[in-house]
This record gives sequence, structure tokens and C-alpha cells, in this order.
Amino acid sequence: MSADTPESDTKLNEAEAREQLIDLAADIYDQFERGDIPQMSLPTRTKSNIVFDDESGVWVYGDRTSTRSANSVRGARKLLKAAYTVEFLAQQLDEDRSSTLRELYYLSESWDSEDAGFNDQDESNQLVEDLEIVSGVTREDFHMRPEESGATLMGPLELREQTRRGERDIHCQEDVGEGGYQIPNNPDTIEFLDHDIDFVLAVETGGMRDRLIENGFDTDYNCLVVHLKGQPARATRRITKRLHDELDLPVVVFTDGDPWSYRIFGSVAYGSIKSAHLSEYLATPEAEYVGIRPQDIVDYDLPTDPLADSDVNALESELEDPRFQTDFWEEQIELQLDIGKKAEQQALAAQGLDFVTDTYLPDRLGEMGIL
Amino acid sequence: MSADTPESDTKLNEAEAREQLIDLAADIYDQFERGDIPQMSLPTRTKSNIVFDDESGVWVYGDRTSTRSANSVRGARKLLKAAYTVEFLAQQLDEDRSSTLRELYYLSESWDSEDAGFNDQDESNQLVEDLEIVSGVTREDFHMRPEESGATLMGPLELREQTRRGERDIHCQEDVGEGGYQIPNNPDTIEFLDHDIDFVLAVETGGMRDRLIENGFDTDYNCLVVHLKGQPARATRRITKRLHDELDLPVVVFTDGDPWSYRIFGSVAYGSIKSAHLSEYLATPEAEYVGIRPQDIVDYDLPTDPLADSDVNALESELEDPRFQTDFWEEQIELQLDIGKKAEQQALAAQGLDFVTDTYLPDRLGEMGIL
Repeated sequence: MSADTPESDTKLNEAEAREQLIDLAADIYDQFERGDIPQMSLPTRTKSNIVFDDESGVWVYGDRTSTRSANSVRGARKLLKAAYTVEFLAQQLDEDRSSTLRELYYLSESWDSEDAGFNDQDESNQLVEDLEIVSGVTREDFHMRPEESGATLMGPLELREQTRRGERDIHCQEDVGEGGYQIPNNPDTIEFLDHDIDFVLAVETGGMRDRLIENGFDTDYNCLVVHLKGQPARATRRITKRLHDELDLPVVVFTDGDPWSYRIFGSVAYGSIKSAHLSEYLATPEAEYVGIRPQDIVDYDLPTDPLADSDVNALESELEDPRFQTDFWEEQIELQLDIGKKAEQQALAAQGLDFVTDTYLPDRLGEMGIL
Repeated sequence: MSADTPESDTKLNEAEAREQLIDLAADIYDQFERGDIPQMSLPTRTKSNIVFDDESGVWVYGDRTSTRSANSVRGARKLLKAAYTVEFLAQQLDEDRSSTLRELYYLSESWDSEDAGFNDQDESNQLVEDLEIVSGVTREDFHMRPEESGATLMGPLELREQTRRGERDIHCQEDVGEGGYQIPNNPDTIEFLDHDIDFVLAVETGGMRDRLIENGFDTDYNCLVVHLKGQPARATRRITKRLHDELDLPVVVFTDGDPWSYRIFGSVAYGSIKSAHLSEYLATPEAEYVGIRPQDIVDYDLPTDPLADSDVNALESELEDPRFQTDFWEEQIELQLDIGKKAEQQALAAQGLDFVTDTYLPDRLGEMGIL
């Protein structure tokens, strides 16, 4: 291992991020100078304003926009907060430091203008998202860390991570414990060195992740197991996308069979409505679903729980979601509403602890052409 | 790295665990043979039945017991389920495999007696806890894995983990990425090889953990940073205790300043009421609190939130909890009820991003005699 850090892509992003931020502030300044009332224009972030982008294959914001203008005290205060935040972020990038959204919120108490302080955490979170959208730079490139880090990897992958303490070369089976390799907050500090992976298997629950590792599924099938830990963190989605794009690997997502888990699949494959501006950075539209299907509940006679009212509402909302308007999802969701049941991925254990690795996954992945 | 596994302590525990389980089944058999109605006796698991054990320095169950007897259909069914579970666990140990509590629940659907199947997950969870108590063997030694794994370590520690794929020697700064070393489900597979640690700092939130690592606190102060991730998993508490006991290291716990965080400290230091039978295995009674005190809210003028009704109730419940009946906690909790405020650990950022590592922790740890 060597401690010198080459001029990496990360560094280029930082310079670009800083420039884009300064441009935002300059734009407000220019509007003032021209005698205009300063304003910022943003895409409307609702389900009705996302459209499918054929070129990138992901869902992005449509044409509708909302405007933040200084023509009211409230709007002016929002732009003031944005200017202070831009200054903080530019300084953070200068010093090669980072911070969390929550730290930004508290730090605003120390700013010299009381009007620039945030009233609550939602306000500062939303502002950072707004800045991402208008600048076209991701939060990671602003060096804003998430509160909780990504999940873990286990499989035949050797990677190099740039850390503050130098480079680390890590093989995600040979150099890690049973817990696997912990994905860092910003996986763009990772370079893929070598691998023997045939496909990437992203798994919802820790119990199932551990079952696959115990049963040696990663070695038997040359598979990289990504633990999603429920709704996946941005870092987890980002590295999944990079594995697909850079190593040309198929990605399959293995979840429970309920509407919340379909959303987990959706956040890997389609991106989320709240962060459609990041779809090209985070979403893997080619990801396929190998999770429990309502059809599996019937075919394998799995132990189930009845759908709660909130499940039914979530399923109905998915039927109206443009991202789920495919034959597969419409058929499965309607079947689920019909049978009124849901099942967890660990319910496969009702047919024995090896059923998932000996039968279920090989059968499903075979049908899908992955194996 | 070598792939051969020596006859370790873990293996001894497995044999012992198996024997204890078989003894339980044999005991039921003997009762039958004597013509007695079989029964199992368990300590009552409530706040009023925990007592301080002077010898071990932890809170354990008192003398009150409840009895599971086959003198009712319901009681007989409970013993039947226990017998099936014992058989499953003994077989699992024979085959050197493991499973999760949720898998056990689903697996019971495949048992040949329908009466032995569990009605819900609470029932199987509770039975495994009962078996831990009556056998005196921990769930880890039964090879029951938790659903979610432990958190991470970062600091000057070199360890050896026994994995299914052989031994792994890992230095928790030099051989890991920014995310740190992922604690495995059963940290008794770890051997401490070498270290340069002066104290162990267990941290509640991911944001604060990342702040300490970014600021180099682990290298500047020879400190092992354990991320608790909220209410700590058993694996996290177990490794913290082992670091204290085996390496003779002071342990300090750094949390938010609210009643839920005091419980996090309590679960590290005192153990929990629900698992007081495990206190000697999991609790570190010498752990000290370096989290946000109500006194700090006043002294450092931290940004706060008002106490919600649920916070007030939790504080009042802590005042009645024997584990919190010390001068320190009574004074702090009463002060908090008086000022009606709580603060997060990241609120220290209101005085700058370095305040926590340059001022707060050095001051507090100095007062406590740790530095």
C-alpha cells in the first residue's frame, strides 16, 4: 500500500463543485446589479412532474418549475440562507473537509446574520437538495456526508479506496471479516482493481445477507452480495450503479414481497421522486427484480401475513406510479391485492435453510437468464 | 494469513452449548419418567425483579420466578415447542451452521407437529430467550444470529477474526476503508493481537462518528472509536465489554443528551432488563458517560429542542430505575426536567466543526481522568 494520492477524479469534481457553487452566488449578484429582484428557479418535485428520459433510461424531472424569489420577506430570507450555505460549502471544499446535514443545521446558529440561521432541519436539508438541483453537482461533491453510512459488500472484488490516511487495497472476501467490506460515505473514492463477479445481488435484509454468505452463495456463483439494509443509502445505490456501468455486470435485487420492498427495488432501479435530479448518478435502470413476487407466494405456498390497510394503499399508489407501469408490475400488484397477502424473503426458510440458495435463487436467476 | 482453524474457545462453547441444551430436554424426560407434570422455572423479567450483584458489578435477576408447566394445554404446548427448538438447535450445532430468529420462526412451519409451530415471531424470540436463561448459554453459542449485524470499529487495534473462509488478520486503521471494520455477528470469533489504544470511545450517531474520524481523533488520542448506531446490537456491546476486560481499557460512551440516549448508555454499562441474564456477558459496568449532560446544555448554551411528553415520561421512569439511582444521574435528570430541554451531540457544531474534538471531549475526558 502506498500513501501518495494521485490527482483523482474526486479532486476534479471538487474543483467543479466549488465553481458551480460560486456561479450560483454570482448569478444572484448579477441579478441585483441589473436591478432585477433575485430569484432561483427549480423543477417541481412531485410524482406528476417526473418523465422518462429515453436517452439515460431513468426518470427525471419534467418541465414544470417553481420559483424562489426575493419579492417577499420569506423568499428573500431563503435566498439569504442559500448565499450563506454556498459560502460555507465553498470554504469546506477549500479546506478539503466535510460535514453532515445535521452539522450544517447547527452550524447556522453561529453565522453572523440571525436571519440566515435555519429554523429546522427540514429547511437546511431541502436547501442542500435545491443547491444540488440548480448547480447540477451532487451532495457528495459538496462534501456533505449522510448521517448513516452505506452498507456492506462481500464477493470476489478487489478495490482501492482513497482514504484520508492514504490508499487501501481491499479484496472483499479475503481481506474482510464475516461482516464484509463497509461501503464509505462517498463511494466515488473507490477504484475497481480486479474482479471475478458474474452478477451483483443486492439483498434487503441482514438475515438473508448472512444466510447467503453462510451458504457460500457468493463463492459458488461468483456473485457480489450487496447488503441494502432496507431502503438503501445513497452510497449503496451509487456503488451498485458503478458496478453495473463500469464492470458491465447484471444487477438483481432480492427483497421481501410487499409494497415497501417494491419501493426499495424502485429506488435502486428507477431513483426516487424526491431526488429525480440524481437518477443518472444513482439509478441502475437495468436492475432486475428477483425478490419475492406475489406469484411466488402462490407457487411456493409461503408463510404470509395479511395485507394491512397501509399496504393496500401503498400498492394502489404504486399502480398509479409511472415507474411501475409495466406488464410485470401491474400483473403482480393486482395479484397481490387479489390474494391479500405478503411474504418476507426469510419466509423461504419454511422449506429449509438451504432452499433459497439450492432452489429459489438458482431457479429464478436461471429463468431470468442471469445464470 | 493461514486457513487452518485451531481448536478455539468458540468450539468449546459449542460443545458446552449442545450439552446444556440436551440437559434441558433430558430434564423434561426425567420429569415424565418420575410421573411428574413437566415444568420449567424462569426468573420473572420485570424492573422490580432486578438486583445489583456486588461481585460482578452488574444488575441481574432477583429471586422471583415464574413457572411454565404442562398442567394446561397452553403450558404443554409451550414445552412441546421448547423440545422441538432444542432439537433444531442441537442439530444446527452438530452441523456447525447458524440461523436467525426469524428463520427459526418460519422453519417451525416445516416441523412434523403442527402444535409445535410458532404462532408469531414474539413467541419464538421469547422461547430462545427462555432457553438462554435456563441453560445459561448465550444465543450466540446456540448459533442464533441477529437480524442486523453490529456496527464498526476504527482505531489502533490489530485483531484476528475466525471466519468460515479461514483466519483474517485486520488492523482497524491500516487495513480498512473510511467505513472502518465491520463487527461480525459473533465477536467471540475475534482475538485481539496487538493495540495502541488508550481508551475506547463508543459513539451514538454516524454523523459524530464520522466527525471524530475526519478530525483524526482516533490517531491524535490513541482512541478506538466504536460506532453504537443508536441502541447498540449485542455484538457491539459484547466487543466493548471484551475490550474493557481483556485489554484493561477505559470505556466512555458519547451520546445525545436525552432520555433515550441515557438508555443507550445504560445498555452498554448496566445491561437491559429484558436480558439481565446476559449482563455478565454484555455489560461493562465500569463504562463512563461522556455524552451531552443537561449541565452541558446550560454551560455551553447548546441549541436545544423542548422535551416532548414522551421524553418527560421516560426521564421520570429513569428516576425510578434502580440502575440510574446515583447522585450523578439524579442530579442531571432533575436538572433536565427543570430546564425542559434536550440536545443532540451534533449540536456541538454550533460552536464550530472542531469544537467537539478540540474542546469538548478533551475537557470532559480530562475532568474524568481519562486523558
